[in-house]
Amino acid sequence: MENSYSYEVSSITIPSLTLESGIELKNVHLAYERTGRKDGPVILVCHALTGTHIVKGTSEDRGWWAGLIGPGSYIDTERFNVVAFNVLGGCEGSSGPTAVNPDTGERYGPDFPHITIRDMVHAQYEALQQLSVQHVEAVIGGSLGGMQALEWGVLYPSYINKVFALAVSPALNDYGLAFNHIGITAIEGDPEFHNGHYPQGAGLKGLEIARMVGMVTYRTQELFDQRFQRERTNEQFNVESYLDYQGKKLGKRFDPNSYLTLLKAMNTHDIGRGREGVDKVAESYRCELISISYEGDLIYSPQYLKDFTEQVSNGEHYYIPTSFGHDGFLVEFEKWGGIISSHLKHHQVQRMATNIK
Amino acid sequence: MENSYSYEVSSITIPSLTLESGIELKNVHLAYERTGRKDGPVILVCHALTGTHIVKGTSEDRGWWAGLIGPGSYIDTERFNVVAFNVLGGCEGSSGPTAVNPDTGERYGPDFPHITIRDMVHAQYEALQQLSVQHVEAVIGGSLGGMQALEWGVLYPSYINKVFALAVSPALNDYGLAFNHIGITAIEGDPEFHNGHYPQGAGLKGLEIARMVGMVTYRTQELFDQRFQRERTNEQFNVESYLDYQGKKLGKRFDPNSYLTLLKAMNTHDIGRGREGVDKVAESYRCELISISYEGDLIYSPQYLKDFTEQVSNGEHYYIPTSFGHDGFLVEFEKWGGIISSHLKHHQVQRMATNIK
Repeated sequence: MENSYSYEVSSITIPSLTLESGIELKNVHLAYERTGRKDGPVILVCHALTGTHIVKGTSEDRGWWAGLIGPGSYIDTERFNVVAFNVLGGCEGSSGPTAVNPDTGERYGPDFPHITIRDMVHAQYEALQQLSVQHVEAVIGGSLGGMQALEWGVLYPSYINKVFALAVSPALNDYGLAFNHIGITAIEGDPEFHNGHYPQGAGLKGLEIARMVGMVTYRTQELFDQRFQRERTNEQFNVESYLDYQGKKLGKRFDPNSYLTLLKAMNTHDIGRGREGVDKVAESYRCELISISYEGDLIYSPQYLKDFTEQVSNGEHYYIPTSFGHDGFLVEFEKWGGIISSHLKHHQVQRMATNIK
Repeated sequence: MENSYSYEVSSITIPSLTLESGIELKNVHLAYERTGRKDGPVILVCHALTGTHIVKGTSEDRGWWAGLIGPGSYIDTERFNVVAFNVLGGCEGSSGPTAVNPDTGERYGPDFPHITIRDMVHAQYEALQQLSVQHVEAVIGGSLGGMQALEWGVLYPSYINKVFALAVSPALNDYGLAFNHIGITAIEGDPEFHNGHYPQGAGLKGLEIARMVGMVTYRTQELFDQRFQRERTNEQFNVESYLDYQGKKLGKRFDPNSYLTLLKAMNTHDIGRGREGVDKVAESYRCELISISYEGDLIYSPQYLKDFTEQVSNGEHYYIPTSFGHDGFLVEFEKWGGIISSHLKHHQVQRMATNIK
């Protein structure tokens, strides 16, 4: 068993990908992390807006879901092979605005085409073909990753068994569009943005503001208040320094055009788009859908996800009480990791039972 | 009775006002609207961040609380004399960054001093003295106006009888500080801001963004979703055009330095500051306090206002179910106007009973 375990961070190239818009992208790179039991069933992890494909990571450099994924953990790498791609449009090794356009030999920059959540899923599917993955046991993701997970269940229902959709809704609602719009306006309205032709690596104030706008939607009032208690250091409130710090931190590591690409892709998220609406999609959703919502999630209303899931014939919804709100899917694994592991176990057992018959 | 009714919009000058910071402001102007029964008991209305002193207005130019205030209305101008000042630091006729500094003969601009909610209340008190108002029956306000109303009850308890505090909390919490910080950062970080020395009347993108940040806190997810339903006009989502419109509209009429002055004053709001905390203040609150909170108010948590009010010996809290959230105090008067009128009536009756004794 020990020998069959591997850890790999690499990149795969798709020769051609036709986007929903009809535009063809050539030589599409997707960076990925692949870990766990080599011959185990595959679990595909989709990351959120500012996440990366390093979901498990190493002991030196822990991934953002290291608390969920590992040997003997909720997603058990002794049983499963876990794959995660840096999202299409991202800036951590996958094709996106910071990548070189093979047609011009220069970076795409603001000319990287608009993409949708469905484009992200198609790209991942093609990449999995390149990796010779025949079948995926489960797709799991939260927030932007949850949008992809939900779409996986519509686009490739016979290729996957289960969808775990966390902290997400069947369509991004207008309230979410509103917050995204503020972020987009801050970036595009920054005079240093120059219509996307800023010098590579320039830290944009607009992106810092966009990040702050995100931050206030990720956690609850309750948590903000508990943590900061109107305390100050010198003249500044600690919550202000915290937001400044988070803004600058993301401003340094994230490409503004890429951030815009991903926000605009989120805006396209509507599982019912071109499919006669959300309800129709729910009725015909063939995959097993396990959805998890988090108390106090400002934009991704628990009720909306619950209503959708309950219309899915093989759907089960869980509501997690928490003071973290939307960020619930990144913390407190002890509260909800067991839901993931038991559904993964349960299925295995069912399958064996079927085999025995 | 008809003859005793008046409507006046004017301005009053306070020769000198010493701020909490110790700074002395000279020739402080406060614009005001005064209406209703000339010899009636005075109701003082405090407006919110982007409101004005035109609370009742005229039939041609309705005030923002015209639905609450008028002859025979919840605040009955046939019985009461209603006074509202443009807030200190504002930009609609009161001393603030757009006013002329008598010491220099030039506009204050960014040199207008930092002010607090308590400074606003002191200024109003001085102005009422100038207007020869001997006593105030009630102070009423929502949001920033509610902060002032709450402070009135601590600073001048023997001058007023009742406080109506709406859509507010005893202290601005960290979540509110966070949203304010994004607005402040957007304005101060706008390269056109020039440390507050922008050309008068310049519409700043930063202020438009700050306004949008406000907008998403004023109304609920539910209301946004109901109203816009992910609909688009051409390529743009309607919710996006709506935010753009609201941003530009405020950008045209509101002074950025004034907006900053008011946000920073809001940030100082903590009724327990320098008074051994919120609980101590609640215990010693002498005025009658009627507080109203609105379901889904994102920043001004109903529970926080309720807890405070219940500690006040003569306090009564009301919770209004609504889908409007924070903006509840600007709409649906039929839901809560009766609370105001009955408390105003009740008191009158009590007083008469006392008189008869």
